[in-house]
Amino acid sequence: MTDSYTRLVSQGLGKDLAKRLGLPQPAVLRRYTPGQALVTGPVLVQGSTAGADELAATLLSWNLDVRRHAVPREKLGAIILVLDGLTTPEDLEKPVLSAASSLRDLGPSARFISISRPAAEAGSPAVAAARQGVDGFVRSLAKELRAGATANGILLSSTVGTTSPSALAALRFFLSGRSAFVDGQFLTVSTAEGTMPADVQKPLAGKVAVVTGAARGIGAAITRTLHRDGATLILVDVPAAGDHLAAVANEVHGTALQLDISRTDAGQRILGHAVQRHGHLDILVHNAGITRDKLLANMDHARWNSVLNINIAAQLRINDALLASEHFRNAPRIVSVASTSGIAGNRGQTNYAASKGGVMGMVRATAPLLAARGGTINAVAPGFIETEMTARIPFAVREVGRRLNALQQGGLPSDVAEAIAFLASDAAGGINGDILRVCGQNLVGA
Amino acid sequence: MTDSYTRLVSQGLGKDLAKRLGLPQPAVLRRYTPGQALVTGPVLVQGSTAGADELAATLLSWNLDVRRHAVPREKLGAIILVLDGLTTPEDLEKPVLSAASSLRDLGPSARFISISRPAAEAGSPAVAAARQGVDGFVRSLAKELRAGATANGILLSSTVGTTSPSALAALRFFLSGRSAFVDGQFLTVSTAEGTMPADVQKPLAGKVAVVTGAARGIGAAITRTLHRDGATLILVDVPAAGDHLAAVANEVHGTALQLDISRTDAGQRILGHAVQRHGHLDILVHNAGITRDKLLANMDHARWNSVLNINIAAQLRINDALLASEHFRNAPRIVSVASTSGIAGNRGQTNYAASKGGVMGMVRATAPLLAARGGTINAVAPGFIETEMTARIPFAVREVGRRLNALQQGGLPSDVAEAIAFLASDAAGGINGDILRVCGQNLVGA
Repeated sequence: MTDSYTRLVSQGLGKDLAKRLGLPQPAVLRRYTPGQALVTGPVLVQGSTAGADELAATLLSWNLDVRRHAVPREKLGAIILVLDGLTTPEDLEKPVLSAASSLRDLGPSARFISISRPAAEAGSPAVAAARQGVDGFVRSLAKELRAGATANGILLSSTVGTTSPSALAALRFFLSGRSAFVDGQFLTVSTAEGTMPADVQKPLAGKVAVVTGAARGIGAAITRTLHRDGATLILVDVPAAGDHLAAVANEVHGTALQLDISRTDAGQRILGHAVQRHGHLDILVHNAGITRDKLLANMDHARWNSVLNINIAAQLRINDALLASEHFRNAPRIVSVASTSGIAGNRGQTNYAASKGGVMGMVRATAPLLAARGGTINAVAPGFIETEMTARIPFAVREVGRRLNALQQGGLPSDVAEAIAFLASDAAGGINGDILRVCGQNLVGA
Repeated sequence: MTDSYTRLVSQGLGKDLAKRLGLPQPAVLRRYTPGQALVTGPVLVQGSTAGADELAATLLSWNLDVRRHAVPREKLGAIILVLDGLTTPEDLEKPVLSAASSLRDLGPSARFISISRPAAEAGSPAVAAARQGVDGFVRSLAKELRAGATANGILLSSTVGTTSPSALAALRFFLSGRSAFVDGQFLTVSTAEGTMPADVQKPLAGKVAVVTGAARGIGAAITRTLHRDGATLILVDVPAAGDHLAAVANEVHGTALQLDISRTDAGQRILGHAVQRHGHLDILVHNAGITRDKLLANMDHARWNSVLNINIAAQLRINDALLASEHFRNAPRIVSVASTSGIAGNRGQTNYAASKGGVMGMVRATAPLLAARGGTINAVAPGFIETEMTARIPFAVREVGRRLNALQQGGLPSDVAEAIAFLASDAAGGINGDILRVCGQNLVGA
């Protein structure tokens, strides 16, 4: 599923016509399905450090076709540029230009992934400059790639090697179709923690997960994706959405909990439901959220309060309840849904952007509390996603919103769900307090 | 000076026509000239903390018309929303909605300024959520204001009060016409340091300043602005720009230093020139920079290296020389010119974005070294600025680049220069390691 315009211009006569008229030609993105190969072709690993050598050996052990040198005219599934030993900006030249000469060999929906270290941890200005240079470089390259190919980066803290479990987990996410709509973004791996699942097809096997706002849209997609990945589901939504909620719950063999999350006892009710049925809770996805758009000049107390209360105050209260519970202690995971509107602001959404900014502030400040319990909390920040809600936006505004990103299209609810499933997995244990944009490198104002 | 389109639609028949056709109607921005009033009308100070009371008293002492409650139908020069005591997201409601009811009273080129605290310093998730909520709120509001009005925020570290000298300096900058093209941005005041100038018309009196790339464009504008603010100038540019350099140097009664800054001894030469003539150096503005645009697939070593070498490696070398010198010790200031391309990436500019990302990484990592010397280092990140360089961009691309920001127009070189002059001043001593975008809230991908 993609929007009708993207389908039109991606094949046959529509494709020819769009080309001649100079219209945007968004590619149909390669999205993950179980059993799908990790990448679409050989993986070129560039960089001359020990970390690059070790990574190449590990990828070989995954049965991938690994190249350390480009083979002329061979179509590539991915280029991985290992830059874990940068000491000055001059160090970028050789590996970057070596990678540049293979860019034309990247196939459709191929991947470019840099692996480097956080500038904030640098011990000198020259090292910091080199590391932050990678950021500008990758974000530019993401805007140059075509045909559904993306460029993203992984930042490894000093204690994390290129083959640490959570570094590899981040790499698998970016290589795979799970990251189809993630472009021009960085994931920070702050500890080596994280364990590979026994069954890579079922990375959430044995996990009990709660999803709020699960009755429709992105919430329903999250529910389906976590179910596909092996989780046992508890679906939360307001009583008014009861019929939809029951239908999705049946589909994923989960249980429905009709609950207004803005109730002060919502956390206790969620825990009670989970513990009664399953004895514990592993994953909480804060997806429920509302919009009540109005220019600030016309904003009223009801619109402001309902959005702040449901989108952020409820998350704070529910987290408090879970963090106090002995039943949320086994490598717990919280994943919140933020928004690019919370990062950059959006006209007519002062209340929504305040609430979603709030979610990101909460996530970063709560990370140490989860770490103390062996867990993590992260957020995804969706850009323009094709839902019933966005389908109601007037046509011209919707078309601009859709195309104003490097992939020239809106994302799908499943794209958001895939990022959440990844962050909820044991393998992602080294990623904590991070915000991952799922926005096709959306042009926003921040 | 603004672009011809903006002039056309801002008055008379062109204004009516643009309105009827639904064309963008960028406002002519109020820009600073010496002697100009700080704001265009009364200042409404909202917020109920002691910090709000103290600030209102200070603004009164500046002879401003200060309101603590809105006067119906009175046109306002600014709304200052003091939020320095937030404990939960619920705390936003009252002050925000109180400010909302006065938004329609904001006159042309008026200011909305929030004063709050950094989310990263919050002691609890609820406090962090409230503080980060301010970020999403202000950035949204900036996209709603019209007629050249802007919304920006000041973040005060815990040791900094609302009337600390550098907090007031940041406030004066945002209130004044100096910040005309700064919109949707935050300045972080990390220490209370900073001293008000003896003469507010000449905040750089007695300072010796070096500007690289001073012969034309933004560099020449920086030179003129620092001169207007009282600094003694040393203008650096390559020998090939000698005639232009001499002309600008004469205009500002400064001295010209013909120098290729990529020489390994450039720092020593700059110091030598300054010390020989003036005995010391106070301010260094790293403005010199080049572009050599090419898609990465077509990038060659010469293009990559020249951009990285001039835009970042030279800055690192020159800083090393200055930081080692006893003649750069009296509250020294370094201000670098970065770019929104370095923040968000830009198609065709992998080399430029890497270099400008590098500048930002360097600035943050060098801040502690300057602090140890009682100084600061910061960067400005210009968006689309009207220069000879941008005048050569093809018309359609230029028009899109110009309008794709909240102020719907390109900035002027003087807008960049004003931000630099502010960061170079003694009053801004509490701002260190910060990046200030001068971009009209440009829509970019980061």
